[in-house]
Amino acid sequence: MALELLASHGCFGGQQRFYRFDSGAIGRPMRVGVYLPPQALAPGAAPVPAVFFLAGLTCSEETFAIKAGAQRVAADLGLALVTPDTSPRGAGVPGEDADWDFGLAAGFYLNATQAPWATHYRMEDHIVHELPGVLAQQLPLDVARLGLCGHSMGGHGALTLALRHPGRFAAVTALAPICAPSQVPWGEKAFSGYLGPDRSAWTAHDASALMAAQERVPYPDGILIDQGLDDKFLASQLRPEVFEAACAAIGQPLTLRRHAGQDHGYFFIQSHIEDHLRWQARALNSGA
Amino acid sequence: MALELLASHGCFGGQQRFYRFDSGAIGRPMRVGVYLPPQALAPGAAPVPAVFFLAGLTCSEETFAIKAGAQRVAADLGLALVTPDTSPRGAGVPGEDADWDFGLAAGFYLNATQAPWATHYRMEDHIVHELPGVLAQQLPLDVARLGLCGHSMGGHGALTLALRHPGRFAAVTALAPICAPSQVPWGEKAFSGYLGPDRSAWTAHDASALMAAQERVPYPDGILIDQGLDDKFLASQLRPEVFEAACAAIGQPLTLRRHAGQDHGYFFIQSHIEDHLRWQARALNSGA
Repeated sequence: MALELLASHGCFGGQQRFYRFDSGAIGRPMRVGVYLPPQALAPGAAPVPAVFFLAGLTCSEETFAIKAGAQRVAADLGLALVTPDTSPRGAGVPGEDADWDFGLAAGFYLNATQAPWATHYRMEDHIVHELPGVLAQQLPLDVARLGLCGHSMGGHGALTLALRHPGRFAAVTALAPICAPSQVPWGEKAFSGYLGPDRSAWTAHDASALMAAQERVPYPDGILIDQGLDDKFLASQLRPEVFEAACAAIGQPLTLRRHAGQDHGYFFIQSHIEDHLRWQARALNSGA
Repeated sequence: MALELLASHGCFGGQQRFYRFDSGAIGRPMRVGVYLPPQALAPGAAPVPAVFFLAGLTCSEETFAIKAGAQRVAADLGLALVTPDTSPRGAGVPGEDADWDFGLAAGFYLNATQAPWATHYRMEDHIVHELPGVLAQQLPLDVARLGLCGHSMGGHGALTLALRHPGRFAAVTALAPICAPSQVPWGEKAFSGYLGPDRSAWTAHDASALMAAQERVPYPDGILIDQGLDDKFLASQLRPEVFEAACAAIGQPLTLRRHAGQDHGYFFIQSHIEDHLRWQARALNSGA
C-alpha cells in the first residue's frame, strides 16, 4: 500500500504532509496527514515517536493540521503527528451524507457490524491495525512508540481505542471527548446505526463502560482530559463526569481540567494542545 | 457605529471575537476579528496595543485567526490582534465575484478611484481611518500604539499603508508580501481596475516605489519580511528583491529572511508569526 504524496509544506523546520493510499481496511482510498518534525528529517536520523490525533464530527485529515497550532510543539519535542480522516470517503453507502453526525465525517472510530455500513466503515481497523504499519514502512516513524489524542468524537475514539488495545498506545489524552456515548444522542445514533439496536454491543465502544470494566489500572501515569465549561455540548453529549466516576471507581488517575469561558472548537484546542503533546512526549520518552 | 458581537471564543486566557458593524468608509456592513489578550480583560486593565494583520487573496477576517496560531504569542505579549476582512462584501458591483484575484476578497487595501469600484472599495479608509476609532470606542485597545503586519496581498497592504501614513503604525512587518505590484500580474490587474490605466497613479500604492521615494528612513529600527523559497508566487508576483533594493537605496534597514523549503501558505506563516509579533511588541513597548 504505497503512500501517494499529495502535498508537503515546510513548517517549523519539519514538513506537514498529506498522503493518500488504497486502504485495505476501508476498501477505499484514504487520506492521512503526517507532520514530520525536523528530527525525523535529519540525515541518518532515528525514527521518531508519533501521536495520532483523532478529529471530531465534520472534520477531515486536514482540520487539526490547519487549526491546532500543534506543529510548533511537535517540532520542539521531536514528535510526529498523524491525523487520520474521520470516515471512509466515496463509499457510496446510501444515506451516508444525509446527516452531519452520522456517516461521512462521522465514523466514530469503530468497525461497523451492521449492513450497509460494515463493508467500508471500519475505522478501528484502519487506525489501529493498518495505519501504523503503512506509515512505518515508508516514513521514519517508530510505531512502537505511539500516543493517542482526540477531540469530541475523536476524544471518544482516543479513549476507546486506547482501552480496547492495551499496550498499543503509550499515552491517551483527550479534549472535550464524548465520554459516555451509550447515554447521549450522538452516540445512540451512531451505535444504533453502526452496531445495531442491541445495547449490550455498545459497551465495548463506550469509554466510561470500558473503564468501569477494567480489572487493573490501564494508564497508571494518568489520563489528561481538557473540557471547556462554555461548551454547548458538555451536558448533552460529552458527560465527562461519567468517565471521571468510572476512573475513580477503578483507581485510574485522571487529570480532568475544566476551563471557564472556553467552548468546543479549535480556539479551545489550540489553547491546550501544548500540554497534551508534552504529556504524550513524557510517556513516549521524547523531547525534554 | 456600534460593534455587533457575532462570536466570542476563549483562547489562551483571552477572547477571540468576531464583530460586524456598519462601515461608513465602505458603505456596507463589515466584519472584523479581534483577539483580546488576557491583559485586556483584567478588571481595571489599561488598554493594550494592537497589531493589525492584513490577510491575502481569498481570505477573510477569520483566516488568520483560525490558521496562524498567533493568539498564544499575543497572550504572552499582551497584544491585541485585529483582522480586517479583505474587501467589501455584498456591494453587488458587477463582476466582483468573477475572479479570485480581483474584487471580492481582493480589495488590495486601497481606495479605488475608478467606477464602479470607487463607491465601496475603500479599504484604505476602512483600515487606517475608520477601524482604529471604532474599535477604541468600544474595546480596551490603545490605538495610539498600532503595528501593522500582513501576508501576500496583505503584505502589500501593510507595507504601503505604513509608508502612506507616517507615524500611524509603530512597526511594519510582512510575510511573502507583494512587493512591487506595478510590475506583476496581480498588481497590474488590481491597479488597472481600481486605479485606472494611468500607471503614474500606481506608484503611490507600490511599496517599492513608495520606499524609493522616501526622503528619510521611515522605520529606523528596521522592517522584517519573511519569504519562503518554495513559494510558487515568489518570482512572478512577490519580487522581494525589488523592495530590498529600494530599502538599500535610501538606507532603510530591512531584515529579509529567505526560508528554504517553505511555500506561500499558513504552514509558513505559523512558523514565523511569533518573530513578527515579538518584533511588533518591541516597537509597541509591550510585553517582554
